[in-house]
Amino acid sequence: MPTADTDLRAAIDRIRLVDHHVHSVVVDNLTEDELELALTEPYAPPARPATVFDSQLGFAVRNWCAPVLGLPSFASAGSYVARRAELGAAEVNRRFLRAAGASDLLVDVGYQGDRLIPDAALAEAGGFTVHTLMRLEAAAERWVTSDAVGVDGLDAVLRESALGAVGFKSVAAYRGGLRLPAEPPAPEAVEAALLHWRDEQRTRDTPPRLTDQVIVRHLIWWALRDGRPVQFHTGFGDPDLLLHEADPLLLQGLLVRAADLRTPVTLLHCYPFVRQAGYLAAVLPHVYFDVGLTSNHIGTSAVTAVRESLELAPFGKVLYSSDAYALPELVYLGARQWRSAIHTVLDENRREHGWPAEECLRVAELIGRENAVAAYRLD
Amino acid sequence: MPTADTDLRAAIDRIRLVDHHVHSVVVDNLTEDELELALTEPYAPPARPATVFDSQLGFAVRNWCAPVLGLPSFASAGSYVARRAELGAAEVNRRFLRAAGASDLLVDVGYQGDRLIPDAALAEAGGFTVHTLMRLEAAAERWVTSDAVGVDGLDAVLRESALGAVGFKSVAAYRGGLRLPAEPPAPEAVEAALLHWRDEQRTRDTPPRLTDQVIVRHLIWWALRDGRPVQFHTGFGDPDLLLHEADPLLLQGLLVRAADLRTPVTLLHCYPFVRQAGYLAAVLPHVYFDVGLTSNHIGTSAVTAVRESLELAPFGKVLYSSDAYALPELVYLGARQWRSAIHTVLDENRREHGWPAEECLRVAELIGRENAVAAYRLD
Amino acid sequence: MPTADTDLRAAIDRIRLVDHHVHSVVVDNLTEDELELALTEPYAPPARPATVFDSQLGFAVRNWCAPVLGLPSFASAGSYVARRAELGAAEVNRRFLRAAGASDLLVDVGYQGDRLIPDAALAEAGGFTVHTLMRLEAAAERWVTSDAVGVDGLDAVLRESALGAVGFKSVAAYRGGLRLPAEPPAPEAVEAALLHWRDEQRTRDTPPRLTDQVIVRHLIWWALRDGRPVQFHTGFGDPDLLLHEADPLLLQGLLVRAADLRTPVTLLHCYPFVRQAGYLAAVLPHVYFDVGLTSNHIGTSAVTAVRESLELAPFGKVLYSSDAYALPELVYLGARQWRSAIHTVLDENRREHGWPAEECLRVAELIGRENAVAAYRLD
Repeated sequence: MPTADTDLRAAIDRIRLVDHHVHSVVVDNLTEDELELALTEPYAPPARPATVFDSQLGFAVRNWCAPVLGLPSFASAGSYVARRAELGAAEVNRRFLRAAGASDLLVDVGYQGDRLIPDAALAEAGGFTVHTLMRLEAAAERWVTSDAVGVDGLDAVLRESALGAVGFKSVAAYRGGLRLPAEPPAPEAVEAALLHWRDEQRTRDTPPRLTDQVIVRHLIWWALRDGRPVQFHTGFGDPDLLLHEADPLLLQGLLVRAADLRTPVTLLHCYPFVRQAGYLAAVLPHVYFDVGLTSNHIGTSAVTAVRESLELAPFGKVLYSSDAYALPELVYLGARQWRSAIHTVLDENRREHGWPAEECLRVAELIGRENAVAAYRLD
Repeated sequence: MPTADTDLRAAIDRIRLVDHHVHSVVVDNLTEDELELALTEPYAPPARPATVFDSQLGFAVRNWCAPVLGLPSFASAGSYVARRAELGAAEVNRRFLRAAGASDLLVDVGYQGDRLIPDAALAEAGGFTVHTLMRLEAAAERWVTSDAVGVDGLDAVLRESALGAVGFKSVAAYRGGLRLPAEPPAPEAVEAALLHWRDEQRTRDTPPRLTDQVIVRHLIWWALRDGRPVQFHTGFGDPDLLLHEADPLLLQGLLVRAADLRTPVTLLHCYPFVRQAGYLAAVLPHVYFDVGLTSNHIGTSAVTAVRESLELAPFGKVLYSSDAYALPELVYLGARQWRSAIHTVLDENRREHGWPAEECLRVAELIGRENAVAAYRLD
Repeated sequence: MPTADTDLRAAIDRIRLVDHHVHSVVVDNLTEDELELALTEPYAPPARPATVFDSQLGFAVRNWCAPVLGLPSFASAGSYVARRAELGAAEVNRRFLRAAGASDLLVDVGYQGDRLIPDAALAEAGGFTVHTLMRLEAAAERWVTSDAVGVDGLDAVLRESALGAVGFKSVAAYRGGLRLPAEPPAPEAVEAALLHWRDEQRTRDTPPRLTDQVIVRHLIWWALRDGRPVQFHTGFGDPDLLLHEADPLLLQGLLVRAADLRTPVTLLHCYPFVRQAGYLAAVLPHVYFDVGLTSNHIGTSAVTAVRESLELAPFGKVLYSSDAYALPELVYLGARQWRSAIHTVLDENRREHGWPAEECLRVAELIGRENAVAAYRLD
């Protein structure tokens, strides 16, 4: 039972996190340029002389990741890359993944998944359990190049793709934005859209990319009716996402309409619309959210995002994720920065407003672990 | 004259608040479920195992309200409810209402007002003066089931309903949102809309609910021309309000157009669009705003909302309200959390930026009391 | 090399700022009313009894400007105005401009420039180098009353106006808002729009004011193709700007489309959309932004805006400006409040997160000076 600041921090550091939205990692040695590219992915590095090493994320790597590799804090990018190569990517992965202190990762395998190591290797390297998230649009893109026919065929592909998955992921934000009608699309409209997409795709020799809004909405409603939790990318991402169209509030009508289904919906990232997501989580019984990705990219300001996430929503509606991609550093940094930020916020409340330390710890455990266990039924 | 932190806090605690937007309270003993429902009202409690007792508002009740009932801080919800029953609702009301330290309440009686105790009983219980706010849409809904004819008949109902009121309240945010045209509706359009609504209502056996945008706008302009202050719900509320359509910035065109009328307009709640409201209050001479409701629901983060409210707008344009509804706890918590938050912000400025303590106190008195006295002509 | 808090602050105070967006000043003695008007410009003072002297900006003038004139902090507005007159406007200008500690000012001469002292006098008074920013809409308004014909004629006026300028300024936010199509307008549409505007202007005896969206967009693309940095007003301004339409995110499509041109784009002010601007600066290699104007008007809360500006964007993408207009106080306050705010944020990171003092100073130097030197090629 923590009774003081240092005890509270130590107890928070011991929470076995559930990282409820994350990607796998590469097992590559990286040059300095490749490391910068991986840190800025999926967007381009800044115009010189700016560099991503001079950013919250770059400073965090030098500050917190360097010691995990046995370097002093704020080692230079050059010495960091050299040390990374010296240890080898497999050992680097092992160190960072284990340092995250997570028991469970929910892995979205839908995005350029073949560059990344398989789930079993990831679980082995990190010493945690890996669960699978099925990306809806990726399943539809398998359908369009398959022989399956119409809505029934698509739904069969979805069902098959969903086998063993603990939840779904929608990237509607990247496929036209979140300004979606409240109601599900009419079945005949879905059939027509599927026919049109199949025809169009046959004339192309590029990989399929779903952008048809009727089909995007069909996938969402299919998943909402399935009942397993549905994740939505909201807020910031790479520049082919129009951030103005990724405000989670744009989903409000749809989420209200879907409320009776009682399917958990989890809003991911949310930055800079964290308070907007907190509102949805407050007023809609089955809506959850996180500030994953955000807590990695805004570094020492993660405390601000975490503080905002604890404003309007019940503490039982906030989740933890890293949204790490490719670099094992990001799995670790997400965890480390979240632990630091949640401790700062809760300890402020302990010192300035008299919250008991055990209540503070309980809130941290809800967010870092228990809420996800309940929403995804991991136990 | 305060000269130090503790003096400043004590002086702020002594300010006789004008709570410029609040509802009356119930005089019921409550079960634990009923208390949770009242705390989440008007939206549903979160899906289990989440509970509103684990939220900023829930923690605030346990932390600050329990001692008012003679319990230790962070008493359990169960013991809190038991103690509430033991004291009886009338005594509970008396304690919380008096602990708020308010001299004047401006009460919006337009929302489910019959569940709540009458103004005279409220004034008696709290030892403060109660003033009335007339809700525009409620008056129109009385018109539609009356015999009064057309615009003239509606305006007569409005005039009569406004007798003795110190101001008006618009819930346009709930009746189609704030994306309203700048100009008043044409008189013939209002006549036509009224005819249509009356006809439609005659075919129904449900209580009337105004959603016609032309009539909603007519009510706003009627009130703006009256000259008494007009309050607008903006920002968060229950889920039948689309938060994206409740950004006070959507009113900018209308407020610019109405500026020459010099009628005070007060933007209520505003969260998460507090800075947007501050901008409108800064650039438009007769626009005021508050962070009421917000300061109740975001608990220890009220300091963030209060800090944001003191960015762009002159201090003479910020008001205090609790927006309490049904629970006397909320009248008290609104006051307590505002006093704590404004003290924190002002004392930071005193310590870090050299603001004299007497200037800090003057700012707190403006916001907690003087600005509302001037805008609503309460003296 | 700074090693502690006080050293870091002193080193930040010594940075020779590049104020990359500012206007010239008047050389007038001012009455108290005129001073209030100048502080609220370009919008009207608040309805009485509110006064802009009771605002963050008013408190900042009394707190930080009074001592520059030899008065105690928090001198009254009356004694401040008297002391200003006693010293004379020229001496007042000299004191504040020099106290800003800037080496270079980039001056936008496009807005009511003839009320303000010429660049040479400004440079002389302040002891800094003055560079010129060409305001695009002002040049077009010279074209419409000239004999120059069509797009070729307009482009010739633009080229001539741009001689010697280090960059451009667009006030599209004031001329219809930032909700602009991504692509450049078709040449024939520009020709038609110019013809129409010329014809329309000939029938008027008011000064021209460009609001045609096709021409506004032509100016932007002309400047983007020129290659010198293009500044956009974004975020708050006076009330004829609809703030909802001044969100920098509305420019995302256009900025993505223009990315291949590699022209630096700088988003000005940005409040309350600072995080949105930071996102654009993070994902688009040539986009920069500042919190100028903001840091003047929100006073002691400038620290919040500065903290938000250091979240997502690389530190090499953030610039400094005061956006001072007319009052030399604003050149000084912008600098003083930025130095205080950036110190607070960086020193927090030093104390709480272990950022080395020399890294903190390097970040401050990037933002206060080096980034602008690189983007505008001032060396």
